[in-house]
Amino acid sequence: MDRHSLKFTLESISKDILSGDRRSLARALSIVEDGGPEASWLVRKLFPHSGRAHLIGVTGSPGVGKSTLVDALIVEILKAKLRVGVLCIDPTSPFTGGAILGDRIRMQGHTLDKNVFIRSMANRGHAGGTALATYDAVRMLEAAGFDVIIIETVGVGQSELAIAQTADTTVLVLMPGSGDDIQAIKSGIMEIGDVFVVNKGDLPGAQKTATEVMQSLELSKNESGWHAPVDVTNAETNEGVEKVWTDIQKHRQWLEKTGNLKARRRAKSEAELAELVAEIARTNLHQSLEHSKQVQDLVSELVDHKVDPHSAAERVIQTIFTS
Amino acid sequence: MDRHSLKFTLESISKDILSGDRRSLARALSIVEDGGPEASWLVRKLFPHSGRAHLIGVTGSPGVGKSTLVDALIVEILKAKLRVGVLCIDPTSPFTGGAILGDRIRMQGHTLDKNVFIRSMANRGHAGGTALATYDAVRMLEAAGFDVIIIETVGVGQSELAIAQTADTTVLVLMPGSGDDIQAIKSGIMEIGDVFVVNKGDLPGAQKTATEVMQSLELSKNESGWHAPVDVTNAETNEGVEKVWTDIQKHRQWLEKTGNLKARRRAKSEAELAELVAEIARTNLHQSLEHSKQVQDLVSELVDHKVDPHSAAERVIQTIFTS
Repeated sequence: MDRHSLKFTLESISKDILSGDRRSLARALSIVEDGGPEASWLVRKLFPHSGRAHLIGVTGSPGVGKSTLVDALIVEILKAKLRVGVLCIDPTSPFTGGAILGDRIRMQGHTLDKNVFIRSMANRGHAGGTALATYDAVRMLEAAGFDVIIIETVGVGQSELAIAQTADTTVLVLMPGSGDDIQAIKSGIMEIGDVFVVNKGDLPGAQKTATEVMQSLELSKNESGWHAPVDVTNAETNEGVEKVWTDIQKHRQWLEKTGNLKARRRAKSEAELAELVAEIARTNLHQSLEHSKQVQDLVSELVDHKVDPHSAAERVIQTIFTS
Repeated sequence: MDRHSLKFTLESISKDILSGDRRSLARALSIVEDGGPEASWLVRKLFPHSGRAHLIGVTGSPGVGKSTLVDALIVEILKAKLRVGVLCIDPTSPFTGGAILGDRIRMQGHTLDKNVFIRSMANRGHAGGTALATYDAVRMLEAAGFDVIIIETVGVGQSELAIAQTADTTVLVLMPGSGDDIQAIKSGIMEIGDVFVVNKGDLPGAQKTATEVMQSLELSKNESGWHAPVDVTNAETNEGVEKVWTDIQKHRQWLEKTGNLKARRRAKSEAELAELVAEIARTNLHQSLEHSKQVQDLVSELVDHKVDPHSAAERVIQTIFTS
């Protein structure tokens, strides 16, 4: 496809997204997943239509029932007459997400509901890239008019934290007896939670786990002034999920009232900018590796141990940003 | 500490590492974990003493018994009169590694053996950074005279793959009934394995899983010419572990004989260089965010939706590499 006709296609996609066309939205999401100039074009075009949705991150260790909780939350959000988009991101397991997700959608019967859009995100091969793709995918969903966007990640590692940071409100899901997770809260690693959920509340020890989480939260200083609620749910039966949705909305109201929403979005913009410049540097280097004899020779010196990697990186950075 | 005395300390550390001092090695590993100019200094200094060890990556999903296999491999390597260093990296769970590892070392009684050095690696907050720290930690161990270095990662996600790429020989560990993992091999995601191990061989279906892995490997084209062996082990009783160690050595010999070792190390150097320039870009941006009014104003424009992130990144990259 030549440059002109590709632009024409992107023009139609962006126009159709704004009028709520689901197929164009799906195509746009594939484009931003892949990254590159087409993705940048779409983001530039649709950026003015983004920034208004409430972004909710849902994260937690595998097996705590995040997907079931998200399904139950979708029902609450639809009851509130809001449109909800869901991005499911599993950077540690790029191959299973799609299939499992397909089953979920069919099970829940949401596929044909125009107020719900669920999408599994493939990864770009490295964690920073996945966070970047998430920022842009959120923008596509916002342009398509979704009021609430849920970003569901698997696990609580550093990749997941970077992705959770793209949300306004982060829901951290645990289950009874999640000793490691409570340890993580104590050590400050899980301070990212704005709303805590102890799911599988029918299992023994649910209330004890909730109490432990509350105690851990009291230990770790919370400078923002927000007192994170700890809810007990049984997502399978919808028990307690309404309370979670109420708490999520309270957090959003608190963010707006206190000016924390703007502060948080500024921090997010800085994090995104850092990842974007890192990505540009990486891309420029890969191009130089293909085209620049000078850079290829430098790699040879590196392989032969004639130059160390840190010195090589400083030398190459001059080349790739001046050529 | 002033600049001169810090350098003096780094001088002593690097000198003492070369004479095999374990405390200096431990300090050097902490320094390269943290990154920054001190880490670069040590890498520059000790780089000429690196590059000779055989680097073995051990990866696989949680619960397949990687740690037990690594413990059993250590015994085999010691029998061969070689010195072995182990780096345990768990980027998805930065807080538990240390304690669990401590138990392992005590259990195995390796602590006082001067031919073994086991170290848990903290992460730098993002996956690329952890891979960079791993490259440098390997160099410290090489400078300290270890012949074999095992890099053990938890999980099979993109972060783990990036870290596994730092090895010469990658051992992929599965267990009977690892359906998801076999799916991953089929889809090419796990083509990184040079030696495959079906551990927990005493469980039912071990041989069936091994056969499935072999069939999956036949489906995915292997252009290198190396036929990856599939071993069945029971690491708890050492059963089959000697064969794994033999296969690892065969792979190393194959790498050297065919020239693949050099090709692989070139690819690794390129990957490291890409991560290093990305890291420099990220660091420069963070510095500009603190000091440059121009960059701070750009972030304000971004937050106010007056400029889109991709355009902002292109503008800022000029600033941070010219100022």
